[in-house]
Amino acid sequence: MPPINTTELKQWVYSFGQADPTRRDLLGGKGAELAQMTSLGLPVPPGFTITTEAFRDYYDSGRWLPEGLWTQVREAMQALEEQTGRRFGDPDNPLLVSVRSGAAISMPGMMDTVLNLGINRSVADGLAENTGNRRFALDVHRRFIQMFGDVVLGVDPSILNAIISEEERRRGVSHAGDLGPQELRQLISTLRSAISEAVGTAVPDDPYQQLEQAIRAVFNSWDSRRAIAYRELNGISHDLGTAVSVVSMVYGNMDSSSCSGVLFTRNPSTGEDALFGEYLVNAQGEDVVAGTATPKALSEMGDEMPVVYEELARTAKDLERHYSDVQEVEFTVEQERLYILQTRSGKRSARAAIKTAVDLANEGLITRDEALLRVEPEQMYQLLLPTFDEGDKELATTDGRLMSIGLGAAPGAATGKLVLDADTATELAGRGVEVILARTETSAEDVHGMAASSGVLTSKGGATSHAAVVARGLGKPCVTGAEGIEVNVDEGWVRAHNLVVRAGEDISIDGATGEIFARAITTVMPPAVLDDEMATLLGWADERRTLGVWANADGPVDAAAAVGFGAEGIGLCRTEHMFFDPARLAVVQTLILSAHKSTQSPENDIHRARYEGALAELEELQTADFEGIFREMGGRPVVVRLLDPPLHEFLPRYEDLATDIAERRAGGEDSAALAEKETLLATVAEMREANPMLGLRGCRVGILYPEIYAMQVKAIVRAARNVETEGVVAHPEIMVPLVSHANELAILRGTIEESIRDTAGTGTEYQIGVMIETPRAALTAGEIAESAEFFSFGTNDLTQTAFAFSRDDAEGKYLAQYVERDILSADPFQTLDLEGVGSLVRIACEAGRQARPGLALGICGEHGGDPASIAFFHEVGLDYVSCSPYRVPVARLAAAQAALRANAT
Amino acid sequence: MPPINTTELKQWVYSFGQADPTRRDLLGGKGAELAQMTSLGLPVPPGFTITTEAFRDYYDSGRWLPEGLWTQVREAMQALEEQTGRRFGDPDNPLLVSVRSGAAISMPGMMDTVLNLGINRSVADGLAENTGNRRFALDVHRRFIQMFGDVVLGVDPSILNAIISEEERRRGVSHAGDLGPQELRQLISTLRSAISEAVGTAVPDDPYQQLEQAIRAVFNSWDSRRAIAYRELNGISHDLGTAVSVVSMVYGNMDSSSCSGVLFTRNPSTGEDALFGEYLVNAQGEDVVAGTATPKALSEMGDEMPVVYEELARTAKDLERHYSDVQEVEFTVEQERLYILQTRSGKRSARAAIKTAVDLANEGLITRDEALLRVEPEQMYQLLLPTFDEGDKELATTDGRLMSIGLGAAPGAATGKLVLDADTATELAGRGVEVILARTETSAEDVHGMAASSGVLTSKGGATSHAAVVARGLGKPCVTGAEGIEVNVDEGWVRAHNLVVRAGEDISIDGATGEIFARAITTVMPPAVLDDEMATLLGWADERRTLGVWANADGPVDAAAAVGFGAEGIGLCRTEHMFFDPARLAVVQTLILSAHKSTQSPENDIHRARYEGALAELEELQTADFEGIFREMGGRPVVVRLLDPPLHEFLPRYEDLATDIAERRAGGEDSAALAEKETLLATVAEMREANPMLGLRGCRVGILYPEIYAMQVKAIVRAARNVETEGVVAHPEIMVPLVSHANELAILRGTIEESIRDTAGTGTEYQIGVMIETPRAALTAGEIAESAEFFSFGTNDLTQTAFAFSRDDAEGKYLAQYVERDILSADPFQTLDLEGVGSLVRIACEAGRQARPGLALGICGEHGGDPASIAFFHEVGLDYVSCSPYRVPVARLAAAQAALRANAT
Repeated sequence: MPPINTTELKQWVYSFGQADPTRRDLLGGKGAELAQMTSLGLPVPPGFTITTEAFRDYYDSGRWLPEGLWTQVREAMQALEEQTGRRFGDPDNPLLVSVRSGAAISMPGMMDTVLNLGINRSVADGLAENTGNRRFALDVHRRFIQMFGDVVLGVDPSILNAIISEEERRRGVSHAGDLGPQELRQLISTLRSAISEAVGTAVPDDPYQQLEQAIRAVFNSWDSRRAIAYRELNGISHDLGTAVSVVSMVYGNMDSSSCSGVLFTRNPSTGEDALFGEYLVNAQGEDVVAGTATPKALSEMGDEMPVVYEELARTAKDLERHYSDVQEVEFTVEQERLYILQTRSGKRSARAAIKTAVDLANEGLITRDEALLRVEPEQMYQLLLPTFDEGDKELATTDGRLMSIGLGAAPGAATGKLVLDADTATELAGRGVEVILARTETSAEDVHGMAASSGVLTSKGGATSHAAVVARGLGKPCVTGAEGIEVNVDEGWVRAHNLVVRAGEDISIDGATGEIFARAITTVMPPAVLDDEMATLLGWADERRTLGVWANADGPVDAAAAVGFGAEGIGLCRTEHMFFDPARLAVVQTLILSAHKSTQSPENDIHRARYEGALAELEELQTADFEGIFREMGGRPVVVRLLDPPLHEFLPRYEDLATDIAERRAGGEDSAALAEKETLLATVAEMREANPMLGLRGCRVGILYPEIYAMQVKAIVRAARNVETEGVVAHPEIMVPLVSHANELAILRGTIEESIRDTAGTGTEYQIGVMIETPRAALTAGEIAESAEFFSFGTNDLTQTAFAFSRDDAEGKYLAQYVERDILSADPFQTLDLEGVGSLVRIACEAGRQARPGLALGICGEHGGDPASIAFFHEVGLDYVSCSPYRVPVARLAAAQAALRANAT
Repeated sequence: MPPINTTELKQWVYSFGQADPTRRDLLGGKGAELAQMTSLGLPVPPGFTITTEAFRDYYDSGRWLPEGLWTQVREAMQALEEQTGRRFGDPDNPLLVSVRSGAAISMPGMMDTVLNLGINRSVADGLAENTGNRRFALDVHRRFIQMFGDVVLGVDPSILNAIISEEERRRGVSHAGDLGPQELRQLISTLRSAISEAVGTAVPDDPYQQLEQAIRAVFNSWDSRRAIAYRELNGISHDLGTAVSVVSMVYGNMDSSSCSGVLFTRNPSTGEDALFGEYLVNAQGEDVVAGTATPKALSEMGDEMPVVYEELARTAKDLERHYSDVQEVEFTVEQERLYILQTRSGKRSARAAIKTAVDLANEGLITRDEALLRVEPEQMYQLLLPTFDEGDKELATTDGRLMSIGLGAAPGAATGKLVLDADTATELAGRGVEVILARTETSAEDVHGMAASSGVLTSKGGATSHAAVVARGLGKPCVTGAEGIEVNVDEGWVRAHNLVVRAGEDISIDGATGEIFARAITTVMPPAVLDDEMATLLGWADERRTLGVWANADGPVDAAAAVGFGAEGIGLCRTEHMFFDPARLAVVQTLILSAHKSTQSPENDIHRARYEGALAELEELQTADFEGIFREMGGRPVVVRLLDPPLHEFLPRYEDLATDIAERRAGGEDSAALAEKETLLATVAEMREANPMLGLRGCRVGILYPEIYAMQVKAIVRAARNVETEGVVAHPEIMVPLVSHANELAILRGTIEESIRDTAGTGTEYQIGVMIETPRAALTAGEIAESAEFFSFGTNDLTQTAFAFSRDDAEGKYLAQYVERDILSADPFQTLDLEGVGSLVRIACEAGRQARPGLALGICGEHGGDPASIAFFHEVGLDYVSCSPYRVPVARLAAAQAALRANAT
């Protein structure tokens, strides 16, 4: 048992001037900040803080105030009386206080505060006489009664609000502050009765009783249901507890030389270095926030109260300088005297975040490293997307043109003509029409249409559905899972309730918010390149990061964007995306059907001839593709992945064919075309797979049909030699997908080297590497490294196989619920699962480098553009991440932050 | 340069009596064995061996015989002359020899041998006079010329065979030995001319020239194409080389008191302890093997040559005793004098292997541990399968009823009436008809029909196709991938060329050989229980093994078989197999559709009511199922796996439904039934998955639809309590499938524990465990172990996900080629991939046991019945393997062998 003396000796209460501002743990955030501002000599209303230790003692003892606390509070109040020259509860010259909560970690709006405490009828009368302003005094009294009833006594606030509204309505005023003194007095009395009636307890008149109850109420609010939920959501310990700050009141509502306001030391939207804010004359702070009256722009204050404004501007800059960051400051002016009530880092838009970080560093307020840590990497991405003009969007909403809100799957705003199939999308886009492609869901066959569209909308699927993933890769705005929308492809319309948009009519989607509008909305385009501040910040990032940043790009347009955003190479060029081009699909289908047939009946020369013809045709096309990419990339490395998806993905779908045939047959058709379709159906049936993700794809295709890989390698080598004649030194690297056994790679390395020799002669060497995307490849990486100059982690497939989660199925069926129910902390297709998939990456890195010391290591799954995952990739020592072009700026910044944070620890 | 003296001093040649029989490396297998038999005092013809060192010197020097070799050979020949009393090349009393190859590791039939060497015309004449048998002497000469021409001079043997056949034809005899002396002399002359003409070299007359050339020829045969191929196939080093043994000839073809023969010291088919073999009077050994004359059964020799027979029998037993194993002995009798030419371990049938191992141990010739190592575990399985009566099968083949040969996917022979769908199979089988189910391929919906059939035939799929795997699990003979067969389900027949079998007609399949016959074949059934020898041997195995052997069993019949074969528990009871019962499928479909609908529209009471109704109905059915299993298993543990497969597997197939609807609609149908089908189609479309293997299945179903798992747990608990009233103490353990994150298991553990409490009250505890079948589960096993009392490795799914191999797709599409091309050393679905999947198992075992020291570890994938995999499971320290009931004996023996081998190292 601890000796009572120890408790008695403990200091529970610190005045602002006396407290150590670094003790956030003891004083809470607000207490520490008030102490800090006081120590800086800023005009802070005096007050004191009751510590979090007192809170813990209160809780541990079963809600008894700690021994000695009350004595210390009384002493602190006396000190406050001396400082302010006012007396608590003295009608002649009354001191009022606010009682404020404040934990060490900010929980905005979660806990309680009581203002204007210390008032009662006689004090109110005194205050009226003292200030010569009866309306003011009664307004303060009314505010106190209302707040104390709500916060301390727990009266349902709607009861009190209803009384006030009724009075306002009856008296024909819009705000209770505008009531006459008699009416206000009447209202106060009505509120007191209502409170007594509701909870059986009156608002005490004795100021110290008010104070004690308010302190208890703030302590107790730590355990309110919403505070507990907030802490659980944010992973804040329930043991921290809250401090309580008691602050002497200052009155922005005293008269027309008083006001309350909020300011940002720089523009929170643009980052411009100019004070930005608003204020309300003759009002308390809560009125500014509540939005019941319209505040004035801060700039007007320079005219209205030039002296105070100047002091405010100076103080704001002092604060910014002290905290080395843009501040959001709450202030009150009481009869032309300025008080600062609160300051904190100002929330800001992505643009402002970047600009102020750069500006602050250039002004010497922070270092460049600090600037790098001030911007969320994701904010780089937000600046590269079109957005809707806010005004036009509001108008559309008011006009009832908002159809539905789906899942914001790939940010950016887009407006265009509605199309419902990929071919029409490609055709119209080719004629310069901006189109939005709407589908129930998308598949590989829709990709060319998606690439041609300005945006994509699906009624099914989630944030990692095919549509979402492809759209993000393409940098296209996308809304998925818009269940409120019916998509009718056959009849050519989408509908939500009574709003119907027909094919060819305007539709707009916001891929950030998920909104869908049945009309065109004006979009605001961001610059197509990095602006000055972004370029500056990313230049600093490049000096710090050790992780390379490459991009995934499948064609020259992507490649150009990648270079524009600073990519150092292409980490993943998916050759199959070239195959999906509708102009080529027929050749690709011939290739696949004849390849399949010619292995089934090798004696049949017709199949073989068709196969070789298709190979030759595709070799020409792919050579031209690669030339385009190499030109854009200059001397930068380009990792080309050989054909990966299951071949039958390029063929018509079995069920579509079967249904079509059944219909025609039932309709009595008996044509040669139908017979041909039936033959095709038989082949499709032979090739189709139970689980295509785990089927005949990737290197397995290369092993069964070596001619296809050989053709692709030849196209790569020929393209490299062709651009050489233009003075471009191409650096292709050849990557084999879906390897699970070292022998697969060893065989294909032979195929690839032979094709290189056949095309370029001996002496030409290319880096040959492997995608590590099966668990077995990761576990046997040492052996695989013997045939590979580089590894690139395919974390999408690695996640699928490690979890046995089919991405296509998981999203719609169970993944959302898993994240919602906290079974998984995040969608593992967005943020790398460090425990499972991460440990495979780690195992493979170690074994691979041990087997081949110079082995290059990269990652080309979508996690390459995710900041949290990038931190991990930095930690395991990858050489580079590769992500979609539009995420390159994100990755550059995230890589720099990872390096800085790793060095800091 | 080594001093010449060293070479000269080296001993290249050892006589049989002088050589050390343990130096197989130096003497080769044959040389060591002849030395061994000589040292045992057995009647071996004298001779000597030229060492493998001589061979290596010969090769290293560019094919010069080593210095000193020839001198030593000459000396050895002289010694041989002294020993035999005959002289090499001396017509008066000629010594002939055989020159035989023999490497340290046996390469049967791969290298050359020359018999009767040392003969020429005058020696032949002398031999004729000396033996008084001209025909014999000329026969020996003819044999020598022919063999020397072929083996030493490299004449195409077909040339010489043609000459002999022509002569036989002309003279009207069936064997050259039956020609008259004149005719034989003529034939010899013709053969010599043909040889000279073919290769430009004559057969030398000088015996020592013959000898030198023969020695070189044997050395050179080491590098024949077939020998190289054989060594590569069997992993034998090319550097070993061969020794050469020169053995004095003895003549089984001297007269009617001479013979040649082969015997087994015990019956190689039954294992009976009685000499078994055959012999041919007046013939050389090659005649017995060639099958040109019909040999007599060895038993007749007892009457014909009683004295020699007795000596032979005694010698045979001596050899068996010496080698502690059944011997296969080659012998020759020359004028009633016995010679042993060769002995080796006798090849034997599975039955003989088991019986002789047990008998030898009981006789004290070997220890019980040795007996355990003498039997291949797979041989235990072979004894438990029906086989075709060989005679009847031959007759059927001769009659042209062999339709085709597919893949022997699950051994055993079966005959029955052809059926082409599962329901008919079940119906006919229910009426006691034996049926063979033929399908193009099978799916989950066919399982009940497969279980009812005597055998399964598919025209598609390989050794790990659904049909193959399920059939092996069911212990049903199965032939898959019978591409020569066309299966027409609609018209009800199977066809190969002109052979058609219609539904209801007899068909027979041999699941070991893959043969398919278009008629009934008599089958020979093995005893349904372990015979005495198996039981004895497995009893010994049980004393040695530390690994438990459990069985996978889904119902009472399987459970009874498992117990009969000695399973100590059920390691995997797949509850869904009960769901596929056609009598229940309607209830299961209602369950699934209403479960899906009721989560989609939770406000709709009708779906909820249907869901609850179906749950209640299934709970009753499953309770009865479990009672049956618990009764059979007595007090043994039963691991019940909760529902695992994707729910849509229980619904009609999307494409079947869609095609049916399309046909009816095109046909003008517009009925309520069709509308209902369309509704069903919509639901099936919602539920169907791109990759079902990685979709909504396993514990994910349990998390989304906890009522289903709760129902199953209640059924388990109720069944356990019900059988308790009959005096059976059931020990169910509850297993959660497809976990990839510890949180999944933690949540389901809650569901399960609650259901147990609800049903059995508090205080009842069941073991709750998890199937480790995703890589992530293995990698995070430590955390998972916190909620699991046991792990059971699902190595089938673990193999699928580690490799990203869909079992359903891999087999038909690429796996066979992978194994054939040696990309994979074995089918990883049959023999565990130790490097990849094995390392996941190892990681999980270590982490799991570290987190929970008493954690029980088992494996229930098909690898649990594979001997090579069992050795690994022993090594990593699992507690038990669980395999199909019919493989339990295999596993018991394999586990014992693993323990013995591990102790030996």
